[in-house]
Amino acid sequence: MTTNWTPRYATRIAGMVPSDIRELAKAMRQPDVISFGGGIPEPTLFPHDVVAESFQRVLSDPQTARIALQYSESGGYMPLREYLAGYMGSRGVPCAPENILITSGSQQGLDFVGRLFLSPGDTVLVEMPTYIGALRAFDACEAKYDGLPSADYLRPAKAKFGYLMPDFQNPRGTCMTLAEREDMLDRAAALDLPLLEDSAYESLRYEGMALPPLIALEAKRAGGIDKGRVLYTGTFSKTIVPSLRVGWLVAPVDVIAKLILIKQAADLHTSTLNQMVMMDLAQRMLNEEHLTRVRTLYKRRRDVTLAALEKHMPKGVTWTRPEGGLYIWVTLPEGVDGTTFAARALKENRVASVSGKSCFAVKTVPNTIRLSFSLIPEDKADEGIRRLADMLKKI
Amino acid sequence: MTTNWTPRYATRIAGMVPSDIRELAKAMRQPDVISFGGGIPEPTLFPHDVVAESFQRVLSDPQTARIALQYSESGGYMPLREYLAGYMGSRGVPCAPENILITSGSQQGLDFVGRLFLSPGDTVLVEMPTYIGALRAFDACEAKYDGLPSADYLRPAKAKFGYLMPDFQNPRGTCMTLAEREDMLDRAAALDLPLLEDSAYESLRYEGMALPPLIALEAKRAGGIDKGRVLYTGTFSKTIVPSLRVGWLVAPVDVIAKLILIKQAADLHTSTLNQMVMMDLAQRMLNEEHLTRVRTLYKRRRDVTLAALEKHMPKGVTWTRPEGGLYIWVTLPEGVDGTTFAARALKENRVASVSGKSCFAVKTVPNTIRLSFSLIPEDKADEGIRRLADMLKKI
Repeated sequence: MTTNWTPRYATRIAGMVPSDIRELAKAMRQPDVISFGGGIPEPTLFPHDVVAESFQRVLSDPQTARIALQYSESGGYMPLREYLAGYMGSRGVPCAPENILITSGSQQGLDFVGRLFLSPGDTVLVEMPTYIGALRAFDACEAKYDGLPSADYLRPAKAKFGYLMPDFQNPRGTCMTLAEREDMLDRAAALDLPLLEDSAYESLRYEGMALPPLIALEAKRAGGIDKGRVLYTGTFSKTIVPSLRVGWLVAPVDVIAKLILIKQAADLHTSTLNQMVMMDLAQRMLNEEHLTRVRTLYKRRRDVTLAALEKHMPKGVTWTRPEGGLYIWVTLPEGVDGTTFAARALKENRVASVSGKSCFAVKTVPNTIRLSFSLIPEDKADEGIRRLADMLKKI
Repeated sequence: MTTNWTPRYATRIAGMVPSDIRELAKAMRQPDVISFGGGIPEPTLFPHDVVAESFQRVLSDPQTARIALQYSESGGYMPLREYLAGYMGSRGVPCAPENILITSGSQQGLDFVGRLFLSPGDTVLVEMPTYIGALRAFDACEAKYDGLPSADYLRPAKAKFGYLMPDFQNPRGTCMTLAEREDMLDRAAALDLPLLEDSAYESLRYEGMALPPLIALEAKRAGGIDKGRVLYTGTFSKTIVPSLRVGWLVAPVDVIAKLILIKQAADLHTSTLNQMVMMDLAQRMLNEEHLTRVRTLYKRRRDVTLAALEKHMPKGVTWTRPEGGLYIWVTLPEGVDGTTFAARALKENRVASVSGKSCFAVKTVPNTIRLSFSLIPEDKADEGIRRLADMLKKI
């Protein structure tokens, strides 16, 4: 009586495509490949002994362990929400624990904001280029896209929110100036447009002055974040470790209440144990000593990569010079397709990079690639860039 | 320039309501309350020392720790997928690691299957009553509901999939017979209707013979699960601990490939560390000794609760006598509203239970309540049931 069945998927599935980066991950990990590919943190920076100690602290007391191993509230472990409210306060964002939702990594925050605002066919305004993972999250809501800012930006009814990364943007590595931040808030206010601020790389500044996040500037204007229209996602993935999957979302209390319903439906709550451990780790590790160690290593890798670009790249190639983050954005000579170039570089010259095309939802610039310097050994950067430059010289 | 903003939420938000159970959770936890409320596991069963040991094992070796603390593949940690393929095989479900997706708890599996099949307005067939958390997940996809089985069940074009819990169903505690399982598969085949089998309580059998899961019966008919139309969610929450948030989903390879795209968009991947620890725990704890300990405790609590119902309940009250799981489903005399009754029982008599009404998506039976015996101290069950019975006698 059984026949092969034909799944009748939701319409959203048609628009969901595998992320090139994660698909390429296997090829990139081969030992002879010089990798400027995925933007993952350097694992020797992971404080595995401190992490192990935190798990022991939480699990060694039977009373605490019972809480840590049980189901818990969808909004998050209250002491962690309190800690993060204080942490955000120290960055100029005065907020209460009720303004914080704990998420399973900040990617889940992007997914939830998509689900909060987007019905099929609704528009999100995004930077050009922007973070691929955000596009994948919004694709799952059948989003349409427009540029932020753009001409269409002036047609407010069309857009449900704007998504942006003001600090060391993935993939360009660039930072918005203070004037650009204020201007963005002006426009958002004029259009009554909520903004989703992704702060993934905020703490990874290697030089220059830190600028206030959009949510801090907005809170100042509005007299508190409950009246402001900026939502903010935070992560421990780039400063402590990614794999505990503990991130957070900051928003007006009313908005958090809606997001808690989404969290409840999506996965009940983030691991109680991981939340308790992350709180212990944050208290012990989010200090200058640890952050300096992290920044020093990535700064060196950025520096050797920029020096190699300067030394080897032929005329007609340009790139960003980021003050932080993990990425350099390279514009190849016009007519060179980034996807073909990156594929050939990996196959023929064993150098991994990411085609820029997948980072555009609108107005694709095809002659672009993203270089991540987070995993590049200092003695390999020059050779890797030289190989890319040689390819370009031959084209 | 800032004004109060008006969020223009997605249409799905209007249909999302707080789960009564989680909202009531606080009141239920007060120490003087005799609780037949939330279906959460008994925390003294949590093997916190074994869990602590597993974390040490994984984190003590720097090489292993680096993998455990890094980003990982969206499908899940391959050794855990392999382990679970073997585990499913031992339950009569021959499958490959590629048939397994690791999820952040089995709730996420329900959410993902909803997102896989449901566009706004699509219909899901559900049991009457059914698991509240599943309704919340499907609500987030703007599902419509119909009964499984029902007259409408014969109009296949309307339904995208059927959701059911064949073993110790939440909230009734009942089990489908072998004949009922085969009949369900016949109907699903006739309609080319995929079924989502939620196995949350499968391992908690206290008496009687275990029956094969639907997915095993279907695999036998179809010659493998890749050709079958049953999807299956599994969990460690009831047998080991809930808070690591590691569950799994079993489905045809093609379906898993689509679900991996959803996973990637939703939260990238489930905690690598938690997956590695859960695999270690499963290998050490999913044995007769540990499961007997768990089953023995819950069986005793079921027995004292059933005995108290028998002793105290007036005529006109009926209840299920489950062979496993955590729930007893009580039908009050006609005309007694379960929601009013449960609220009064908690407020006036300090006994927590859950109104049955929230468990129905269609054809609500209002004179019902769910009793969970998972947390009831053996010496309190009689008193708790006596108070409920006294209330009914007065009505």
